[in-house]
Amino acid sequence: MSTTTDIKGQPLDRAFLDGLLRRRLFYTPSFEIYNGVSGLYDYGPPGCALQANIIDLWRKHFILEEDMLEVDCTVLTPHEVLKTSGHVDKFADWMCKDPKNGDILRADHFVEDVLETRLRGDKEARGEKIEEKEESDAKKKKKKTKGQEAIKLDDEVVKEYESILAQIDNYNGEQLGELIKKYDLRNPATGVQPTPPVAFNLMFQTSIGPSSNLPGYLRPETAQGQFLNFHKLLEFNTGQMPFASASIGKSYRNEISPRAGLLRVREFLMAEIEHFVDPEGHKKHHRFGEVEDIELVLLDRETQLSGQTTLRKIAIGKAVKDGLVDNETLGYFLARIHLFLKKLGIDQSKVRFRQHMANEMAHYATDCWDAELLTSTGWVECVGCADRSAYDLSVHAKKTGAPLVVRERLETPKVIEELQVEIEKKKFGPAFKKDARAIETALLDTTQEQREKLAKELEENGKVILDVAGVADGKAEVGKDLLKIEFRKRTENVREYTPNVIEPSFGIGRILYSLIEHVYWSRASDGGDEARSVLSFPPAVAPTKVLVVPLSAKEEFRPLVRQVLQKLRAAGISSRVDDSSASIGKRYARNDELGTPFGITVDFQTIKDGSVTLRDRDSTRQVRADMDKIVSAIQTLVSDSKTWQDVESELPKFETQELEIR
Amino acid sequence: MSTTTDIKGQPLDRAFLDGLLRRRLFYTPSFEIYNGVSGLYDYGPPGCALQANIIDLWRKHFILEEDMLEVDCTVLTPHEVLKTSGHVDKFADWMCKDPKNGDILRADHFVEDVLETRLRGDKEARGEKIEEKEESDAKKKKKKTKGQEAIKLDDEVVKEYESILAQIDNYNGEQLGELIKKYDLRNPATGVQPTPPVAFNLMFQTSIGPSSNLPGYLRPETAQGQFLNFHKLLEFNTGQMPFASASIGKSYRNEISPRAGLLRVREFLMAEIEHFVDPEGHKKHHRFGEVEDIELVLLDRETQLSGQTTLRKIAIGKAVKDGLVDNETLGYFLARIHLFLKKLGIDQSKVRFRQHMANEMAHYATDCWDAELLTSTGWVECVGCADRSAYDLSVHAKKTGAPLVVRERLETPKVIEELQVEIEKKKFGPAFKKDARAIETALLDTTQEQREKLAKELEENGKVILDVAGVADGKAEVGKDLLKIEFRKRTENVREYTPNVIEPSFGIGRILYSLIEHVYWSRASDGGDEARSVLSFPPAVAPTKVLVVPLSAKEEFRPLVRQVLQKLRAAGISSRVDDSSASIGKRYARNDELGTPFGITVDFQTIKDGSVTLRDRDSTRQVRADMDKIVSAIQTLVSDSKTWQDVESELPKFETQELEIR
Repeated sequence: MSTTTDIKGQPLDRAFLDGLLRRRLFYTPSFEIYNGVSGLYDYGPPGCALQANIIDLWRKHFILEEDMLEVDCTVLTPHEVLKTSGHVDKFADWMCKDPKNGDILRADHFVEDVLETRLRGDKEARGEKIEEKEESDAKKKKKKTKGQEAIKLDDEVVKEYESILAQIDNYNGEQLGELIKKYDLRNPATGVQPTPPVAFNLMFQTSIGPSSNLPGYLRPETAQGQFLNFHKLLEFNTGQMPFASASIGKSYRNEISPRAGLLRVREFLMAEIEHFVDPEGHKKHHRFGEVEDIELVLLDRETQLSGQTTLRKIAIGKAVKDGLVDNETLGYFLARIHLFLKKLGIDQSKVRFRQHMANEMAHYATDCWDAELLTSTGWVECVGCADRSAYDLSVHAKKTGAPLVVRERLETPKVIEELQVEIEKKKFGPAFKKDARAIETALLDTTQEQREKLAKELEENGKVILDVAGVADGKAEVGKDLLKIEFRKRTENVREYTPNVIEPSFGIGRILYSLIEHVYWSRASDGGDEARSVLSFPPAVAPTKVLVVPLSAKEEFRPLVRQVLQKLRAAGISSRVDDSSASIGKRYARNDELGTPFGITVDFQTIKDGSVTLRDRDSTRQVRADMDKIVSAIQTLVSDSKTWQDVESELPKFETQELEIR
Repeated sequence: MSTTTDIKGQPLDRAFLDGLLRRRLFYTPSFEIYNGVSGLYDYGPPGCALQANIIDLWRKHFILEEDMLEVDCTVLTPHEVLKTSGHVDKFADWMCKDPKNGDILRADHFVEDVLETRLRGDKEARGEKIEEKEESDAKKKKKKTKGQEAIKLDDEVVKEYESILAQIDNYNGEQLGELIKKYDLRNPATGVQPTPPVAFNLMFQTSIGPSSNLPGYLRPETAQGQFLNFHKLLEFNTGQMPFASASIGKSYRNEISPRAGLLRVREFLMAEIEHFVDPEGHKKHHRFGEVEDIELVLLDRETQLSGQTTLRKIAIGKAVKDGLVDNETLGYFLARIHLFLKKLGIDQSKVRFRQHMANEMAHYATDCWDAELLTSTGWVECVGCADRSAYDLSVHAKKTGAPLVVRERLETPKVIEELQVEIEKKKFGPAFKKDARAIETALLDTTQEQREKLAKELEENGKVILDVAGVADGKAEVGKDLLKIEFRKRTENVREYTPNVIEPSFGIGRILYSLIEHVYWSRASDGGDEARSVLSFPPAVAPTKVLVVPLSAKEEFRPLVRQVLQKLRAAGISSRVDDSSASIGKRYARNDELGTPFGITVDFQTIKDGSVTLRDRDSTRQVRADMDKIVSAIQTLVSDSKTWQDVESELPKFETQELEIR
């Protein structure tokens, strides 16, 4: 895979872009005057506006479009909830320590770094050209290639390394430890092998209340709050299934050593949907027909396990039909995620859906596809779409006894004939005394299959002998005077089931950063020597929609600028004024960096006839008309109902000041 | 003060309202199936929508209207930052413990509870009528009046108690301890005196990173992130002063024993503004003229300290002129806060601005006014407006060396003549060796006054002796061969100053709950026996704007319902459909509870001519017209450009189904 390029096909200079984003305060490391804390970032005004617009679009595309039930649950979560959900025991990454200098390393990233370094050394030794930045996931941020030596490897070894890297996400801690030993992987900083990987829980811990007696965590996902409220939400939805809840809020993960800017942070904004669906009937979706022809780029599990990363483009309808994607509901959401990313302005050649491998999946998932976006640091997981089955609702219901189920009246009652266990209560207690309860429970807990055997035994021997933990000898003998096992009929009027959950989960910060890379390019300036950066956000997403530029800060322009601003505000269009003394061209260039799609110039002609020019950021072309016409043109552009070409064909072109304003 | 009443003057039944809000999922206790955690609440769909609308209005009213710079900083904050800001040492409440049963009590609330109980007992003994709910702040949530006995107190004692209660917020821990001893205040649950108050820090603690070596907290306010970014924000604002930053996000306070529903929670949404202003020139505000005639209801510091709670209504212009409110900028924001609350639908007879007393103020504040809203639990602080002076910027600059200052080019340079210290560098080092640096620093750190003395000493004795920590004996002797202290002129071209900060800080959850109480009332039903609850939110704030009601769920109405919904969506108006089998009247009643301001009925006439009826929630009156006319009428109602009276005068009245639909 070659170096990442921008939308104009030019190589993307990540360090330069990063400098621009910090300079223009899209984001900045938090607590920088205190030397910062890795993995924590603040958003400045353009970052905030961009984030708010992405969230707004998300809310419309998902919550409003599908009448989802939005909830806002707390971040603080008591220990017991996350113990039950499995996060206390299983929400961990593998961590190694360098015994020499105390460096703490994330095991999978460490293995990957060393192997990639060796592969580059091999290429160098073979005299092959090395790409500056090879494909690699952002979460596997490479260190400087310290310790890289040009050593040729056996062809066999190269193949082994490549195969390991293709499935790096599939190794558990023990396996990572074996790789470290087998290939003698050493920390480049010290030249020694790190200690075997141990699990490090990623949740931030705290305690709630004054007496410190209630341990808790900052939630690692918004999902749990939605599950715990399932019953109330179902009632709010007047008992109707399927339905989805949704939540937008911060979550927290104590990453081992985050070093990838906005792509790996410890505090992040998530938007999560929990779609509750009846597990019977193959999880159909009533709107699947609307999306089945949409083509997605997929990288499935089998391909990865065979050591490949070949992508294939396939209509989601066919992918579900072929069993590549498990069911319609999962497929429906993959297509809806695709449409959302497209609407945002994500480069369609830089999106893929990758299926998780078995060991890679979170403990609650039975299947999972990630929407990954290609950035200068490789493919980045930006949206996860997991099938959590009935896992979460079941464990919480079991722990608390709460009825996290759906009860459906059956139109035709169901008659069930099955072996039932009946105990002779009056004699049973006196016969077994303190063991009576345990023996009764053991009998009632039997399956139909076991009952069949027991019934036979009872008939043949006049008694049954069964294993019961806790009673003497661990065995109990029950005679036929105390026990009946017979076929009986019962009628069910209500069907009770635990819904399955399909969960599309969006990392807003990662999407935001990837989007910036996807819309970034640089334009040669008129002089030709200095390139000018442009962020070509779609108008609906851009932090500010319009820059208003008076020819100068002179008094005579002020009432006209106020008039333009007032018309824009009335139309609900966000704008900024730049009346600094810089040339109009410079002022527009500064705002191209901020991604402002349109510019209005107020000049001497405006004083005469009230007309203003409207400039398009991407083409730098201009039209001129009276204020009202220009403002309503902008309205159609921002709401995506017209393109710049449409506007240009409808309004008089303006070229006089073209050179100066470009 | 009498029992709280609703907008129709009826007594407000808080328990009933609370039941309604939980039933309709405005909010619900978090983790309820795990028995809940006090002080934590989740918002359901109507609560989320209401919160989003309040935030949206806030953003428009403050951020957009005044071009504030929005930032989004992290909640996780390292120890050092909050140590410097003073929160580690001072952000605490006073806590007592009952030595018998281990009850943990918040000291001020405990003192207040016991004294109020005694006063009620006294009234009873005197045979006076006792109001069910007397005035008391929500933060001072009363326990059930367990232990209340009808004991008459001396008139003197009654006066003392009343005076204590009027200034209860002004006692520190030691003083609260003295009150407990002096009046022998006992925990009603056990009959024993609690231990003397100790400080309990309200911040949630955690640690950041895998090696647990970076202690941190969840921020107790959003302000610190804004201060730390001051320099970058000033640059983003091209160096221009004054300006304001703003932030909307969650903050955390580990309340000692929260028991007041949404009014006292441990995790809450805040919206905070930090307005940076030059401290010279009396903190004028260039838009003060726009608000000076607005009348506010004030309760100043002096009145409270005299044991009174008398309110006075005064124009903010006069209040600033009289020195009651310290400066224009503070006054400007008080007026803007007032306008915001009015726009939200807050009952204007239930707002007051109360000034903090000295001991009550946060450690960083030099003055503070709270906007308090009257609820069924008393006056509740919903917005604080503090003058933080230069406190925060100064302490962070001092700690980190970062230049959190404004540098202003002086139009006429300033010539300053002052005593300057000059050291003979070549000889100084060799003379004092390892102490040289410390002695030099001590000399340079001297004030003009000290230099005057030293210069005299140097002239008279040929040497100076000065205190220097860390050198032998703690004293250093410097001869005149090493040191000159002389008057010299220097020219300053730049003025450097640390801005002062005016901080309006909004507790969104408290405003949300108070608003609900202010717009709640109940309507007699037609039958007359069953009252129906209504939440009369202003249309702009209401969670959903329109309920669409087809006469029945029959197929023939469906395309018409879809058509209405599509028109509403295109107009950006949020709506819900209720096609359940309940009567139209019942369906409307259910949505009156949710505060939905408008209803559209689709009936047989609609099939014939496309006309629909529009119902007004508050009056239950209706008009009828074609869909487009109705949708554009709703648009003008939601954007507040027309009232229902206007719409009624323009569109044909509809009365046929009045009774049924009411």
